[in-house]
Amino acid sequence: MYSGEKFSALYHIVAAGEAEALARGEDICIEQTVEFPADLIQDEHIRRYIFGQVVRLERVAEGVYAVEIHFGAETSGGELPQLLNVLFGNISIKPGVRLITFELPASLLGKFRGPRYGRKGLRGLVGVKSGPLLCTAVKPMGKTPAELARLAYAFALGGMDMIKDDHGLSDQVFCPFRERVEHCAAAVAEANSRTGRNCLYMPNVTGPFPLIIERCHAARAAGAGGFVISPGLAGFDVMRHIADDDQLCLPVLAHPALQGSFTAHPASGIAHGALYGQINRLAGADAVIFPNFGGRFAFTRDECRDIVRGSNMEMGHIKPVFPVPAGGMKVEGVTEMTDFYGEDVILLIGGDLHRHGGDLAESCRGFAAKVSRRLV
Amino acid sequence: MYSGEKFSALYHIVAAGEAEALARGEDICIEQTVEFPADLIQDEHIRRYIFGQVVRLERVAEGVYAVEIHFGAETSGGELPQLLNVLFGNISIKPGVRLITFELPASLLGKFRGPRYGRKGLRGLVGVKSGPLLCTAVKPMGKTPAELARLAYAFALGGMDMIKDDHGLSDQVFCPFRERVEHCAAAVAEANSRTGRNCLYMPNVTGPFPLIIERCHAARAAGAGGFVISPGLAGFDVMRHIADDDQLCLPVLAHPALQGSFTAHPASGIAHGALYGQINRLAGADAVIFPNFGGRFAFTRDECRDIVRGSNMEMGHIKPVFPVPAGGMKVEGVTEMTDFYGEDVILLIGGDLHRHGGDLAESCRGFAAKVSRRLV
Repeated sequence: MYSGEKFSALYHIVAAGEAEALARGEDICIEQTVEFPADLIQDEHIRRYIFGQVVRLERVAEGVYAVEIHFGAETSGGELPQLLNVLFGNISIKPGVRLITFELPASLLGKFRGPRYGRKGLRGLVGVKSGPLLCTAVKPMGKTPAELARLAYAFALGGMDMIKDDHGLSDQVFCPFRERVEHCAAAVAEANSRTGRNCLYMPNVTGPFPLIIERCHAARAAGAGGFVISPGLAGFDVMRHIADDDQLCLPVLAHPALQGSFTAHPASGIAHGALYGQINRLAGADAVIFPNFGGRFAFTRDECRDIVRGSNMEMGHIKPVFPVPAGGMKVEGVTEMTDFYGEDVILLIGGDLHRHGGDLAESCRGFAAKVSRRLV
Repeated sequence: MYSGEKFSALYHIVAAGEAEALARGEDICIEQTVEFPADLIQDEHIRRYIFGQVVRLERVAEGVYAVEIHFGAETSGGELPQLLNVLFGNISIKPGVRLITFELPASLLGKFRGPRYGRKGLRGLVGVKSGPLLCTAVKPMGKTPAELARLAYAFALGGMDMIKDDHGLSDQVFCPFRERVEHCAAAVAEANSRTGRNCLYMPNVTGPFPLIIERCHAARAAGAGGFVISPGLAGFDVMRHIADDDQLCLPVLAHPALQGSFTAHPASGIAHGALYGQINRLAGADAVIFPNFGGRFAFTRDECRDIVRGSNMEMGHIKPVFPVPAGGMKVEGVTEMTDFYGEDVILLIGGDLHRHGGDLAESCRGFAAKVSRRLV
């Protein structure tokens, strides 16, 4: 019944010294599993296969210790919600514990398909063999489907690879979901027929359950080329379900809405790379949006580097995914971004494209001219 | 198309002075709606009905300002995920902004059923007219369904009103979901037939989508009396979907797993009462578990008070729900808890019941003897 296999989680723990760090680590071993007074548990198999085990402890900074814990693979039930629960469920509520990264054995990775496309697959879909992919967003909220479709048409004509809905567009009375998706998908298809390219229109899909799933299917039927999903709003496993759906079979772009509290304070929460990289990959995202350094949010270069690490680190068959730095990016900053991220990145510029005169297609061409890429 | 109705959100914003607080508040008005350079938007209806509006600003402490913002009701699309997105989606990623509370107009509240039972309904189900309800948990992880069922039987015999699964019990190989639920529900039914009472067995339901829903139905068929759902793991709207399901029609107990980061730091995230109280109520929970002050977590008395406020505050037809303080509570602390929470509380004691000798039913009677209540 018990394989003896373990998955591993690395935490940073705030503690006054090594003894306290070890005690807090051992507390996590109990809190995340049996959640019961350890001294009252006599069963040998529970102590051996269910209790977490501290396997490594080292000081990483004044008052902060890295503590690696092994958990029995079976505690996760092989399911994403319970895996997240063991990794960080109850201890999310304890101060001074941060999940830094985790590692799963092949048997557990095998329970997850992960991204259907990943970096290579997305490049294939849009026909861009090398260099950054280019993305922009239709917005603002309050425009009609027809107005947004005109923007989408110009963006696609101007050479964007992906056009996403702003993540605030849901199914509002002023811009109903189906109408928006039909208009925008048709506009992008029309532009594609002129450019000969395959720009993807990716509507934002949200909504009460099970409507969110129905909307995905309606969007696909209307010609959508992928989906924007906010796992913080929908739930990680709902994103996974959409990514895994073989009837949909479209790429997923993860948006960080409502997830900021996880990374907000360095002494607690979940590290950027684990949250936006690793967990999003397990949950099937092909590309992950996050706030770039220097934009209107406050991520640092190191935090963005950690997301790139999480997007690309070894996770067995789980494919590497594209980092999508965003949040007030400007065309003039493109070179700095490509210097930092290299070519395996999706550059997402929204509002700034509207600052360069009325011809949006021309603004897009100016954006594209900043990067060097090879089309297939 | 636009009703002119607004919903209101109160934030605490970190700022050096009033001018900065106002600027940050105005930034929220844009960030949470159009997410687009405001100066580029000419449309009168967008500026009027879509942009948020700062309606009140006052200093609440050194460097902290309360800022109330009105958002057009239509921006929420009348759907929970998008409502959460407007309230705190992108600004969760900005430092120094905390959502304190919110207020919805009747038209928007009308989109939500809220708790099916709430305080009064749960009292009716378990037949306890006044005084605290009593709850405990079957655990630890690693016990077999038959072993857990023996515990459940003793707890029910001892007078518990509700017996929940530990939230770490999912569908692990060592304790499969269906087998566990069948055993425990049967054991509690058997005890109920002896006591003449209606103790509810509430399994923890988690799992990949759509299995989580199928498990709820299987649990109901097996005699479960409600569900433990962790909205942080499953998604708030998945909990709402389960609560709203008229084929299920059972009470929901919300567990805070993975949500701790929202409340961890007073200068950001979501306040305890808004998260565990208001949002859980919109999402259909009938009772909400949270870490009591003085337990093994770190909530303060004021934070617990705020959860009680959120569980009970005026929200139109959305019923008040039970606070369920937990996390290492002891029988000897019951009087302090009832002094603090009054009679409208569910007292949840887990591990400590096992510390008082081998007769669990007798331990439960000792727990019950500490509170004064009237059965119907």
